[in-house]
Parts: sequence; structure tokens; C-alpha cells
Amino acid sequence: MKRYQALADDIARSIRQGLLRPGQRLPSVRETRAARGVSAATVFQAYYLLEAQGLVQPRPRSGYYVRAAPEPLPPEPDAASAPDGESRPVDVSALVFEVLESAMAREVVPLGSAFLSPALFPLARLGRAMAHEAVHLDPRSTVDDLTPGKSELRRHIALRYRVEGVDLGAGDLVICNGAIEALNLCIAATTRPGDAVLVESPCFYVALQTLERYGLRAVEVPTHPREGIDLGALDAAIRRHAPKACWLMTRFQNPLGASLPEAKTRELVELLARHELPLIEDDVYGELHFGAQRPRPAKAFDTRGLVLHCSSFSKTLAPGYRIGWAAPGRYAQQVARLKLTHTLATCVPAQLAIARYLQRGSYERHLRGLRKTLAQQQAAYLRAVAQHFPAGTRVTRPDGGYFLWIELPPDRDALWIQRQAAQRGISVAPGPIFSAHRGYRHCLRLNYGHPLDDRVDAGLRVLGELSAARSG
Amino acid sequence: MKRYQALADDIARSIRQGLLRPGQRLPSVRETRAARGVSAATVFQAYYLLEAQGLVQPRPRSGYYVRAAPEPLPPEPDAASAPDGESRPVDVSALVFEVLESAMAREVVPLGSAFLSPALFPLARLGRAMAHEAVHLDPRSTVDDLTPGKSELRRHIALRYRVEGVDLGAGDLVICNGAIEALNLCIAATTRPGDAVLVESPCFYVALQTLERYGLRAVEVPTHPREGIDLGALDAAIRRHAPKACWLMTRFQNPLGASLPEAKTRELVELLARHELPLIEDDVYGELHFGAQRPRPAKAFDTRGLVLHCSSFSKTLAPGYRIGWAAPGRYAQQVARLKLTHTLATCVPAQLAIARYLQRGSYERHLRGLRKTLAQQQAAYLRAVAQHFPAGTRVTRPDGGYFLWIELPPDRDALWIQRQAAQRGISVAPGPIFSAHRGYRHCLRLNYGHPLDDRVDAGLRVLGELSAARSG
Repeated sequence: MKRYQALADDIARSIRQGLLRPGQRLPSVRETRAARGVSAATVFQAYYLLEAQGLVQPRPRSGYYVRAAPEPLPPEPDAASAPDGESRPVDVSALVFEVLESAMAREVVPLGSAFLSPALFPLARLGRAMAHEAVHLDPRSTVDDLTPGKSELRRHIALRYRVEGVDLGAGDLVICNGAIEALNLCIAATTRPGDAVLVESPCFYVALQTLERYGLRAVEVPTHPREGIDLGALDAAIRRHAPKACWLMTRFQNPLGASLPEAKTRELVELLARHELPLIEDDVYGELHFGAQRPRPAKAFDTRGLVLHCSSFSKTLAPGYRIGWAAPGRYAQQVARLKLTHTLATCVPAQLAIARYLQRGSYERHLRGLRKTLAQQQAAYLRAVAQHFPAGTRVTRPDGGYFLWIELPPDRDALWIQRQAAQRGISVAPGPIFSAHRGYRHCLRLNYGHPLDDRVDAGLRVLGELSAARSG
Repeated sequence: MKRYQALADDIARSIRQGLLRPGQRLPSVRETRAARGVSAATVFQAYYLLEAQGLVQPRPRSGYYVRAAPEPLPPEPDAASAPDGESRPVDVSALVFEVLESAMAREVVPLGSAFLSPALFPLARLGRAMAHEAVHLDPRSTVDDLTPGKSELRRHIALRYRVEGVDLGAGDLVICNGAIEALNLCIAATTRPGDAVLVESPCFYVALQTLERYGLRAVEVPTHPREGIDLGALDAAIRRHAPKACWLMTRFQNPLGASLPEAKTRELVELLARHELPLIEDDVYGELHFGAQRPRPAKAFDTRGLVLHCSSFSKTLAPGYRIGWAAPGRYAQQVARLKLTHTLATCVPAQLAIARYLQRGSYERHLRGLRKTLAQQQAAYLRAVAQHFPAGTRVTRPDGGYFLWIELPPDRDALWIQRQAAQRGISVAPGPIFSAHRGYRHCLRLNYGHPLDDRVDAGLRVLGELSAARSG
């Protein structure tokens, strides 16, 4: 644990134990430095973290104060899901499209959106990088490196992985039109129509739609809302269904926010390797971690080339640029060839713009700010859920990403809530779109990636009211 | 026929009849204007056309002169292909990749390339449009219009179709990552694995690879090298195989360069409509016509929403930007939904850059220049083929696009020629990659989209020598 976290934990404990009371001022940065023998930066980080946790609040030119006793937060869901263990063809697409299409207008309150607020990205700075690259584009660069993508971009991405402890080189990567294309190519490289694929339960609806489109069968595996997929259940499902691939989000899973701890990630890779089973790892939220504890992706432990790791810049830097990638391990040639007939290549100026931005070195600073903003927004949304939602509600507190998973009392109907909310200009993602068996009828996924302004707060209040009603 | 064409035809006749002799100067523009009562522009256009046809050449500050009697050009192929009429699963991808991968290095003579010389595009001007859009990007525009694509771009594309006599609105279009994605989505929207699809014989290898990837069966239909697919044979194939789609390139077909005359295009659409059979129309070369006679695409005659028309800017304006589109008729919603799970969206700054470039109105001028360059390059390549290739060679003279189709004497082996040429740093596309039954073993496709410099001329000489040898 980092120093600032240890300090924040101590102060949080003092608040809980009543040693620091609501309205009381925290010791100044100078006092705390002296008392603890730590740097000013550490004290600031600790205070920011406490603020994000909703325990303290700053007052201008005065310091940090203990907040009035907060509403106690609803409990976290604490049990792994229990899907029925069957393999089944997927038929969710029509429902998903119905829900998505009702959520697309700009004026809708975006609680059901899959995207972050686009205002959170350094689009102007990135635009200047693109302006430079577009005007100075070497015509030959529009034809070189067509299918794997520009080598300068692949080098920067590989370097970031190395820093994280993942041994990848530029030659291991295929640049794609967003992670969605990368995932499509990886599933096409590892399966044939009719094959079974293991997924988390609940899981991201685009994974289900992709299985549906490729004529694959889904096997949903029990998944814990904090610790991710159940490895015992995974092993049993492999033995029972002889699947051809496993498709997981190991870090800050959509919709649960679950993350596999590092030891469990390693076990997962070993388990799948024993079965020679490829793992398609969707890691688009991996960079959005709040804690210093950043579990490494499964790819870090892949010694056999069986992990097809996919990610993108769409959630972290450059929405709309559509730049993602696959690191497909032993399937690299197959994925590159599929890419050629799928879309041939990825927008060259967009690739070069991101390469230039990364070269300039401001990505880390941007990510630090984005993580802090998201941690603060999570805390604010949790407080609003505590305030607006009925008794019996449970809600996750993920360590990253930008989704909350809400379990309502079991007699509530998320599809009814979603339709009622849509009529009032509020979007929300209902549980059944995250499951091939249309389970999770009493669950909602909330996006906290937009600032909690009055409009969003009013939207949350409406969702809370609809969740309190015993439906139609 | 336009005035300048009539004038050029008259002069060409005079040259053939010996009224104008090699080395003789053509009348000056002023003289011809006066004699014919036409504008200077008409005279210039006629002289340019004669130059493109290789009949006259300019001398600086002096005028146009009749060329020394040119080598007579090899004859055109004059018979439609005669595939066996069977339906078969496709298995060409490995061969195609082998050929493509041997042709990718920058130093290879690009006679087998599928691309134009990137130096032919207004990349600097387009880059300035992109620079403007990237720097002024409205963050919300990265999320709006995600799946169909930016409305400003769709409006410009639709407007261009209207001018051409194709009744399309912005709402009929889905922007894609190049025409390849558009074609993929259209084939996915109209077929299921195991279905039969009708294609031209020979046809573009990416069409075959796509059928292979989707588990479809190909039925190759006899196709004439100038007039395109044989409608009688098409009708018979529909009755015999009950296909689910027909995938054609109606204008400047790759690899033959064939174009359906307008009346035949209309008949094609009516024939398919009688069978309720969707037509996937790949029209990426449609803008690259040399004659004033510009046959309209099949989409122009589609009253039933059965034509899924696809095109892009990759061959005409913006290679590397990866902007294409589909106009899928009655399949529009299906294609848009498939797009969402295929790649979600298309690079936003690239879309806005092209929209801005089109808005500025320089696209028509660029296209006129490009068409003229390609017509001149075709003439130069034809002369080189006449010079270097063996007796018995036939070669097409398409009215647009940038491919020549060469038929060698029947005992020659294009795959042997391709491998020998590859070892000498020269690429060429061998006939068998354009056919599910691996026919056209004595045929080659030549790209004339690069200026015929000494290096290219030497490459053509080597190909001619290999074609003269009776192979390994």
C-alpha cells in the first residue's frame, strides 16, 4: 500500500471512530507533514482520496473538513451470480438494439450510456497532434503497414505494456478500428459457428451480440461482483461444454466493475493453458484504475501465446478516433489476415496523431487526472444512489472504470424501469441485456462517467422512484 | 458523344488513313477553332484525348505532332469467360495472402498492387481540412451519429449521387471503414453460412475471401471482358442454385475492367428484382471513368430497395483515411446494426475532414485530373505491353479504373510467372486468385495506377520475358 493510502486509511478510521467529528477541520498539510514525516504531495494525495470517498470536503482558503455524517451507502452485492450452466444460442441483439436506440439522443440523461463524457478527454491537444500529422502526411505512409497498423503507434503501445510488466513488442500488435473490431477478429480466429464460448455472467452485451452474429453458443459462468469469474465453475464449464474460447474482461468488468486479483489472474491463465483454451481478454477499462493496486492483465502471465488481449484508446484518450488493438499471441497471423478482409486497415492520420500524442508524453498526466475525476464521480453517484434508491438496494463500489451495478429488491423489473425512464428522457441499462438467459431482471447498470449535475441528479431521483415502485 | 470526342475521332481517322502522317504537326488550336467553329477548350480536350490514346505527342512551345506509327496494340480478349457453372465452397484465401504478402514491401515494382500511386491524391489539401476539423472538434461530435456516420458527410455523398441520377438521401447511407467493411456488412445482412452467392468470373479476390470467411458457396457466372456479366447465364444460375445474393462490380470491374452499358445495367436490376434477389454492388471504381459516357450504377435503377450499393473514397481521394459507405436499400437497418457490433463507428475526424474537403468544392477538379492521368497511364502501359509481351497476348482497354487484364497464350502459368517475378522484386496479380475454381491460369492483372517510369518499364519487360518463356 502506498503512503498516501495508509495515511488516508488512518484518517478514515479516526472519522469512523468519532475521533474526528463532522464539521471538524483536518490538521493542515504542514502539521500532518511534520507529525507523519511524509511529503506534502503525500498529504495532498491522501486528502484528495478522502474527498473522493466522500469523507471530507474542502472549503476555499481554509482547508479540509469532515463532512456531515454521510448517508450510509447501500451494501455491496456479495454473492457470485448463479447462471444455470447451460450452453445456449444467443438471441439478445434485438433487445439490446431497442434499448440502445432509445438512449442515443444528445438530450437524454446518459445513465445508460456506454461512454464517458467526451468533455473528459484532451481532444484539443490530440487535435493539434492530428493537425500536424495530417498536413505532413507522407503519401507512402497511406499504403505502408496497412494491415498491422503504423509501426510508430505499435511501438508506443508496446512500450506502455512493458512498463506494466507485459512482455509485448510492436510486432505482436494488430491495430484495429476500436477494441470492438479486435474482439471480432479474435473470436473469428478461435471459433467456428456452433462452438461454445465461455463468458462472465452478467457480461458486456456486445460480447453476446458478437457470439450471436457468429452463430456461437454462450455458456455463462458464475461471476463475483468484486473478484470476477469463479475459477472452479469455469473449470467445470470447460469440462462439461468443451468450449473453443473464453471471453472475459479481467479488469473493471462491464457491467459489474469486478477485477480479478493478480494471483487469481495468474491462476486463470494457468487453468486455461491446461485446457489449451484461448482467452480473449477485453481490457478496455484497465487504465482506469483508482487504487495504487493495479492488477496486471492476464496477458502478463501468458507464456503460451493463448491470450488474445484487446484494448483501445476509446475509453481513455480518443473517443471517435476508433483506434484499438489486438495482441493475439499465437493467433497473430490469423488475426492480421482476418483484419485484411474485415476492414483492410485503420485510419492512418488517426494512428499517427495518437502516436505523436504519446510521444509528447502527456498521456500519463491526463490519465492521472481522469482516474481522479472518475473516483470522485463514483463517490458522488454512490451518495445519490444512497439518497434516491429504495431500501434493499445493493450497489457495487468498483476500483476503476465507470459503471455501478445495482441490485434492486428481487421483485423489481429493470425492463419496465428502463422503458418508463426512456419516456422521461433518461437512459439506463437494464440487467437482461447483459445475459444470454435474460437474467438479472432486477438489476441496472449505471454510468457515472458524466459529472453529477442537477440534471443527472434529477435523473437518478426518477430512477430511484421507479425502482421503489413495484412495477407494472 | 461530346464535341471534343467527335473532333478527336475525326483526327484519329485522318491519322489512320494517312492524311496526317507521323511527325506532322496538328493544326494549331486557333486554326482548328476557326475551321470547326468550336471553343479552344474543346480543341484542347480533343488533343489531350489523342495524346492519351498514344496517337499524338506535344512538343514544348511548338504544338502537337503525330506520333511515329505506334506498335499495333495486342488484340482485346473478346470472349466471355466460361466457368463450369457449379456452386462450390471457397478456398482461395491462403493463396491470395501468399501473393499479397510477397507484394507489400515499398521497393517492389507495384504491378500487382491493388492501389493507385498515393502521389496522385490531394493529401496536403485534405490534410489541411483535417487539421481544421481536428483542432475544432466538438467533443459531443465524437458520440453523436456514431453508427450511421456523420450527417454532414452523408449529406455530401448523397448530393453527389443525386447529380449522377441516383436518388439517395443522407438517411440512406451508413459510413464504414472503407468499402470493404461496407461489403462485409451487406453480405452478412443478406446471407447465412452455406448459402450460394453469384459472382463474376473472374472476380475480385477480396469478394472470394469474404465468401470463404462467411462459409458461403460461390457460383461464378460467365463475364465478358468489356460488357460485364452475361445476363442469360446469370438467369440460368439463379434458377439452378437459388442463391441468396449476387455480388458484382458493375463499373470498371476488378480485374477485367468490364463495365455494364446502361441498358444492360437496367436489365440486370430488373432481372434480379424478378427473382427478389439482392444485388451487392461494389462501385469503388465508378468515379474513375475516362469517357464522357458514364454508365450509371445499378443503384440508379433500384426501385425495390434490393440493391446494396457500396463505395469509398479510398481509390479516388483519400487512401489511408478508410472512409467508405453502404447504401443498403431495404437492408439499411440491418446493416447499421451489424456495423454497431462490427466496428461500432468510423473515425470521426477523418469523416469531418472529407466532408469539409467536399464542401470546399475542389473534388471535381481533382477527379478530372486523376481521370486524365489514368487514361494517359493506360495508354503508356498498353504500348509497353505491346512492346514487351509475346505474340498471342491479349489485353483489355477498359474505359476506366486502373487495371489491365492480360490473357497469355493458354500454355503459360501465371502462378509460375508471379513467383519468378516476386524473386526479382516485381509484383503481379496472377489469374487464379480471381476465381474460386482457380481458373485463369494463363492470365495476369496489371496495375497501371503508377507512373510508367524506367523502373516500371523494366518490370514490364521482365514480366514480358517470363510470359514468353514456356514456364517451369
